[in-house]
Amino acid sequence: MRYEEQTIEGRNAVLEAFRSGKTIDKIHVQKGCQDGPVNSILREARKQDTIISFVPKERLDQMSGTGKHQGVIASAAAYEYAQVEELLRLAEERKEPPFLILLDNIEDPHNLGAIIRTANLAGAHGVIIPKRRAAGLTATVAKASAGALNYTPVAKVTNLGNTIEELKEQGLWFVCADMEGTQMYDLDLKGPIGLVIGNEGEGVSRLVREKCDLTASIPMKGEIDSLNASVAAGVLAYEIVRQRMG
Amino acid sequence: MRYEEQTIEGRNAVLEAFRSGKTIDKIHVQKGCQDGPVNSILREARKQDTIISFVPKERLDQMSGTGKHQGVIASAAAYEYAQVEELLRLAEERKEPPFLILLDNIEDPHNLGAIIRTANLAGAHGVIIPKRRAAGLTATVAKASAGALNYTPVAKVTNLGNTIEELKEQGLWFVCADMEGTQMYDLDLKGPIGLVIGNEGEGVSRLVREKCDLTASIPMKGEIDSLNASVAAGVLAYEIVRQRMG
Repeated sequence: MRYEEQTIEGRNAVLEAFRSGKTIDKIHVQKGCQDGPVNSILREARKQDTIISFVPKERLDQMSGTGKHQGVIASAAAYEYAQVEELLRLAEERKEPPFLILLDNIEDPHNLGAIIRTANLAGAHGVIIPKRRAAGLTATVAKASAGALNYTPVAKVTNLGNTIEELKEQGLWFVCADMEGTQMYDLDLKGPIGLVIGNEGEGVSRLVREKCDLTASIPMKGEIDSLNASVAAGVLAYEIVRQRMG
Repeated sequence: MRYEEQTIEGRNAVLEAFRSGKTIDKIHVQKGCQDGPVNSILREARKQDTIISFVPKERLDQMSGTGKHQGVIASAAAYEYAQVEELLRLAEERKEPPFLILLDNIEDPHNLGAIIRTANLAGAHGVIIPKRRAAGLTATVAKASAGALNYTPVAKVTNLGNTIEELKEQGLWFVCADMEGTQMYDLDLKGPIGLVIGNEGEGVSRLVREKCDLTASIPMKGEIDSLNASVAAGVLAYEIVRQRMG
């Protein structure tokens, strides 16, 4: 299993987990505990938008596996990120042209989970997310992915633009979702492809868009601006599926 | 505007709003207020999963438009539901074969909002939801719809099966999303159509499915069971768009 939820017990262990950059989804803190180390933990938790729950000592005793919780138990998401090479290897194993989905700063964990779910069912070989500014792989993402996080590899990269350049050298074409683009039905999306989906509010950033070979638009007939990001990703991913089947 | 947020002030007015079945998204209650009428309001609020926020009197004074809040201000979603006939009339006005989206008990307000958003952009003439068991049109739905709730009419019906029968008499065909169905690319979805999307967990209910003329499946290549309901609705709605354009 690539994704697991784990618990971390004890003040030092929890503080250390925060400081090492681990994604902590929730902490349980003993009611009335207000000393220095606990306050440091609460500060880190607030910084990272971790859910904080104050509970009686008895509840912590029940939850504890070690019996040494010292008033603090954290729930963390442990995800073993894939390397980009693994995604390509998966395509090779399945004897299919690579089909990757790149997310340019998706912020909503429900959208991120739903897109990983779509990637799994559309037969994509993996998802690539940037290290900064985007939603990470939390328990909410895992739940929204409906289990897909255990099957579809997710790689985290420092710079999406550089990753696109490297993958182009391996023969991939990149198509980015853009309202101003060519209507998706008029593009040839059959070959080795990376589909780039932008941020909920701003779309694909200029720097990333400029690296793409094609821009694809979804026909829009209504009064409003854009589809939900995970719906747009689904519609575009399935246009790729349709073309590949034909 | 079909959708508006409104505030209701005063104990009787708020209690009356709850009892008339109005959708109250949030109530602000003065801290320390604990008498009979306030307790009745809190009880109704808990029954309906309304968000309850206890605030100081000064805050209520600031929020109040009437100056007579009596310790309680409610935020309600006011939505003017459409009649099913209006949806058909919209199709007629646009000189298009009707294209309706029917939701069989979608429970998640984010999904409901995202589907209304998709309906708007895919050029559907409206959305039909059942009165019972499903998510209603709250502020969360309005936000997730990104404004579409003001353009795409939503009708609420007592019995989805009966509505399908009535619409069949007006020449509509019904296609329901079902994993066991015919692959969507092999169906003719060009005519007057109602697309039926099922509940997040259970899919389309048997009674509703039996009323449908066609069942459509989305090709699935992965390890998990199903797409997110709003993504599935988007993929199917855009298959209808593609066929109608061709």
